[in-house]
Amino acid sequence: VAAPAVTRLTLEYDGTHFAGWAIQPGKRTVQAVVEEALRTLLRRDVTLVVAGRTDRGVHALGQVASYGGEPAPLRSLNAILPHDVAVLEVAPAEPGFSARYDAVSRTYLYRLHTRRPGPSPFELGRALWWPHRADLSLLRECAAALPGIRDFTAFTPSQSYHSRFTRHVLAASWEHDGPEALAFRIEAESFMRNMVRILVGTMLEVGSGRRSLEEFVALLEGAPRAAAGVTAPPQGLYLESVRY
Amino acid sequence: VAAPAVTRLTLEYDGTHFAGWAIQPGKRTVQAVVEEALRTLLRRDVTLVVAGRTDRGVHALGQVASYGGEPAPLRSLNAILPHDVAVLEVAPAEPGFSARYDAVSRTYLYRLHTRRPGPSPFELGRALWWPHRADLSLLRECAAALPGIRDFTAFTPSQSYHSRFTRHVLAASWEHDGPEALAFRIEAESFMRNMVRILVGTMLEVGSGRRSLEEFVALLEGAPRAAAGVTAPPQGLYLESVRY
Repeated sequence: VAAPAVTRLTLEYDGTHFAGWAIQPGKRTVQAVVEEALRTLLRRDVTLVVAGRTDRGVHALGQVASYGGEPAPLRSLNAILPHDVAVLEVAPAEPGFSARYDAVSRTYLYRLHTRRPGPSPFELGRALWWPHRADLSLLRECAAALPGIRDFTAFTPSQSYHSRFTRHVLAASWEHDGPEALAFRIEAESFMRNMVRILVGTMLEVGSGRRSLEEFVALLEGAPRAAAGVTAPPQGLYLESVRY
Repeated sequence: VAAPAVTRLTLEYDGTHFAGWAIQPGKRTVQAVVEEALRTLLRRDVTLVVAGRTDRGVHALGQVASYGGEPAPLRSLNAILPHDVAVLEVAPAEPGFSARYDAVSRTYLYRLHTRRPGPSPFELGRALWWPHRADLSLLRECAAALPGIRDFTAFTPSQSYHSRFTRHVLAASWEHDGPEALAFRIEAESFMRNMVRILVGTMLEVGSGRRSLEEFVALLEGAPRAAAGVTAPPQGLYLESVRY
């Protein structure tokens, strides 16, 4: 008996008008919209498994999802999907492939738009407007403290359900992203809820001089949520890619 | 008696949700929105004179407008303007300055998004999606034919009111704009209605092999509107800058 076929989708979406990835009754979500397009083309129900569940307002440049069944035609999918979601690739996967469990790492990008005296209309919903001080060498020292296995208890809501609070970060960096933008990029085996956004919110306290680098580094040893900084807003966050 | 003060504004806007620049009763226009913000701050009526009247859906990166009166504070203006318009600069101008009549040239940009197999959600409303053939050397030969004084009768609607149909083009070029985009840039003393969009629509017929370069060049000698190609859609067009 042949193993059942599995298909892998690579997706890009502008999260502005979505209530996040996961299906929620009565809400417009990416999962609901893509599953509906697949249902139309394949004439049966399909359930997607996803590499990174993104929250309301969070974007994706290279989200990966999988479903049991044959590939749907890429052009037909894009023709019926709404314009704020695009399928970049449809490919047959190994039998038993799971976009979630077979992922080796996820990479997230967080974009800051630093222009003074006001934000660009073209960055609306796509970056956090940060006209304040952002000392790049301090931000880079924060990022340099992240790789390795760290305890991120301080970087997820205290009511989060997680069975463990350590995560393995593979790489983290701050870079210029054009003349008026900064980008934080982080690759980890997996992430906790809001982890990147709380990291960014806390690093920006260091970069603007309101918190010391030493305080930030000390948070990575299991400090409580209340010891870290604010959660940066969702519009700057992008799931950039997933490695298998 | 001192000459009355004149103020010059440099503006950026995302034209997606505007019915163009010029005031129209019952429509949301950029002029109406900016004049209303000035009225709020200056506590009197203000009429703006603009360098380039943009149509519905057309964007601006460096639009210039002027009004009689003292400068309004830049930060206050940006604080009360909607997020799809930003003021980049507010400056006192010479007495008698007109953003329209003192402009030496305007530069427009037209962006094509060339990705296959589907358009990026992040380019929606910001570029023309062109997954078809676009031979860059042919497009460049078209652009090379534009500088000088040419008769653009074929490149404006036949019902347009213009007292003359020649225009002086100072520069025109096609360039790559990142890996999946092309940009046409044209500087001229002034433009006629829809001129850049009809030029782009017609050049794309050359670039995709449906019209010869020679036919395109012959249009620049006063051919009728019907001899030229389609009007490219507004979302790819940006008023980039104005020279004085």
